[in-house]
Amino acid sequence: MRTIREQSLELHKQAKGKLSVNIKVDVQNAHDLSLVYSPGVAEPCKEIHENPEKVYDYTIKGNLVAIVSDGTSVLGLGNIGGAASMPVMEGKSALFKAFADIDAFPICLNITDPEQIIQTVKAMEPTFGGINLEDISAPNCFIIEERLKKEMNIPVFHDDQHGTAIVTAAGLINSLKLVNKKLRDSTVVVNGAGAAGIAITKLLFNMGVYDIILCDSKGAIYSGRSNGMNDMKESITKITNKNNLKGSLQEVIKGTDVFVGVSVARALTKEMILTMKEDPIIFAMANPDPEIMPAEAIAAGAAVIGTGRSDLPNQVNNVLAFPGIFKGALKVFASEINEEMKLAAVYAISNLVDPEELTNEYIIPNVFDSRVVEAVADAVAQAAMDTGVARRVENLSI
Amino acid sequence: MRTIREQSLELHKQAKGKLSVNIKVDVQNAHDLSLVYSPGVAEPCKEIHENPEKVYDYTIKGNLVAIVSDGTSVLGLGNIGGAASMPVMEGKSALFKAFADIDAFPICLNITDPEQIIQTVKAMEPTFGGINLEDISAPNCFIIEERLKKEMNIPVFHDDQHGTAIVTAAGLINSLKLVNKKLRDSTVVVNGAGAAGIAITKLLFNMGVYDIILCDSKGAIYSGRSNGMNDMKESITKITNKNNLKGSLQEVIKGTDVFVGVSVARALTKEMILTMKEDPIIFAMANPDPEIMPAEAIAAGAAVIGTGRSDLPNQVNNVLAFPGIFKGALKVFASEINEEMKLAAVYAISNLVDPEELTNEYIIPNVFDSRVVEAVADAVAQAAMDTGVARRVENLSI
Repeated sequence: MRTIREQSLELHKQAKGKLSVNIKVDVQNAHDLSLVYSPGVAEPCKEIHENPEKVYDYTIKGNLVAIVSDGTSVLGLGNIGGAASMPVMEGKSALFKAFADIDAFPICLNITDPEQIIQTVKAMEPTFGGINLEDISAPNCFIIEERLKKEMNIPVFHDDQHGTAIVTAAGLINSLKLVNKKLRDSTVVVNGAGAAGIAITKLLFNMGVYDIILCDSKGAIYSGRSNGMNDMKESITKITNKNNLKGSLQEVIKGTDVFVGVSVARALTKEMILTMKEDPIIFAMANPDPEIMPAEAIAAGAAVIGTGRSDLPNQVNNVLAFPGIFKGALKVFASEINEEMKLAAVYAISNLVDPEELTNEYIIPNVFDSRVVEAVADAVAQAAMDTGVARRVENLSI
Repeated sequence: MRTIREQSLELHKQAKGKLSVNIKVDVQNAHDLSLVYSPGVAEPCKEIHENPEKVYDYTIKGNLVAIVSDGTSVLGLGNIGGAASMPVMEGKSALFKAFADIDAFPICLNITDPEQIIQTVKAMEPTFGGINLEDISAPNCFIIEERLKKEMNIPVFHDDQHGTAIVTAAGLINSLKLVNKKLRDSTVVVNGAGAAGIAITKLLFNMGVYDIILCDSKGAIYSGRSNGMNDMKESITKITNKNNLKGSLQEVIKGTDVFVGVSVARALTKEMILTMKEDPIIFAMANPDPEIMPAEAIAAGAAVIGTGRSDLPNQVNNVLAFPGIFKGALKVFASEINEEMKLAAVYAISNLVDPEELTNEYIIPNVFDSRVVEAVADAVAQAAMDTGVARRVENLSI
């Protein structure tokens, strides 16, 4: 049996990458050429020049997403740079195609200055219908996303933040149903204050969670903490840690309802779980090795345990979110992906698990559940129309 | 019968553009995902991180060309901007695929400042194996190409300049054979001092043409001319117009051997042709209406007439050059497309017309002649290896 390493290298080498650019019209003879190129191509150009919105009718823009990365924070590999991140961004593009039939294209950059990245991505706005930021390190990812959202007129989405947050929230809703608790009564510890941890915290706050205690490797984050702070961490204290708790994860996890880990392997122990409230819910999503293994968590009394791994139950995987979110946004040529659209995605995902079927090993749909992408897309498109960010109105099946 | 306009709009609208991005490996189940994405994708990333040249083994970079435009000088349409130029750049990408099986991708920009365009294109170097600049207005196109050639380590090629120049030169070589003249004895008038005219002038000079008189709408360009000059025109006077001729096209065309028009419809008259040397050769390439129609040119004594039109003999079309040039450069992962590679392309194209078959209606291969792309690619790859700009050595069929 060949290892994953051997198989992956062989697959990548034989195919020379994973994507191809193909023609979807005929280019066989002089007549074809006269339509797809000179002189016929001038006609859609003139139409778009007169009415810029027609770019969505006559070009690939409306179904095209750029997967943009500077390779500074590649999952499990860290800062490997743009070129070495190409296989990941090609892979991400492949997932867009496989799960949502979206044409996605890797744009790997050799620059890391946020302002330069902002200017580069903005310059390509005529080409793309959406921008998926990927594997850009914090805090640059926050700066870049915020500016691009403001300054571009197409959806910009940092999947490491929001994809993770959306799927986590969907799983949390169903986990709480299972143990008969409510979001507004629950206290959640989020361990890890990078891109994903920050986004999870904000989303759970927007959903009305009672209290969130965000921790990094130095423990609970509170206003005025002297070490390891940054602007984002300081500003997040306004919506977290009601009681201004100080101390290590071990100290602040006591009496909480939910642990959400986007940190490192083995960050959570059985002993810590034993100090949580009844029916603790554990999302241990460090990759590839979770903060605690499911068997251990269950032995310590966990009511639900989810991880990022495909070989364990309750896989919290972004692929449940981003394909449908972009498909929904592109369906109505949305100008952005706003909070309402993200929340719509959360509930679309969680609602796919029938309450009758809900168990502690089935709190979110399987990544290959074919209902997911359309359910999320329709909910997101509807939310875009409802909030006035849709360029076109569509009749949806919902 | 529907017009080209109606057919083109319908084709573009039905397909929503002309390209798609596709997956060339399986993405069907969890095992596939573990190879193309997490965790297997980390393996090629690590390989590339250790040895950057391996990006050519494990990703699409080696067969991927960006078609970059700011839409400031779109053929026949002028400055229509990046978004409205998308159909042209998609069409160009389609030609790369159809003629050379190269994955090409449009990058249409909403910026026109040359320095910004330079920085934007440079930032994407990790992604692409080559850059084709398209429909960027002069003189910015010269500035951008020169800087990118210097500052990037992949081929950069402005097709409006060099593609046109290469095919024109190939046609000229065969035309001169037909009338028993030599390059080194011939005087050529080039009418039109934009991107194409400048590049044709430089290439013909490098090939040893006796004299070239470059004209713009104000007539012959000579050193120190007071009106309508720019840096490029001033510098080109060092290699043109040996006798420092002044005056209109009508005045300076007298006694010359060849007219090359990249200007406007009806710029050349029968009367002008009558003042040229015996067996004048006319390339009237203004689009869509040539500087003079073939019947008129022949009536005035033209030995050969070529145009840009597919419905007339001797179509001088860039598609004879760029697919093979990029295919050859990419075949050996060349770091640039240098003058030797361009000259190799010229002779590869002209040599495909057997001297026995050469007539005044067959001086260059037909655009659908399937021998062209491989002949050009092999010659260009060989020239890249001979001049030391190839990253890899290939055994070519030639």
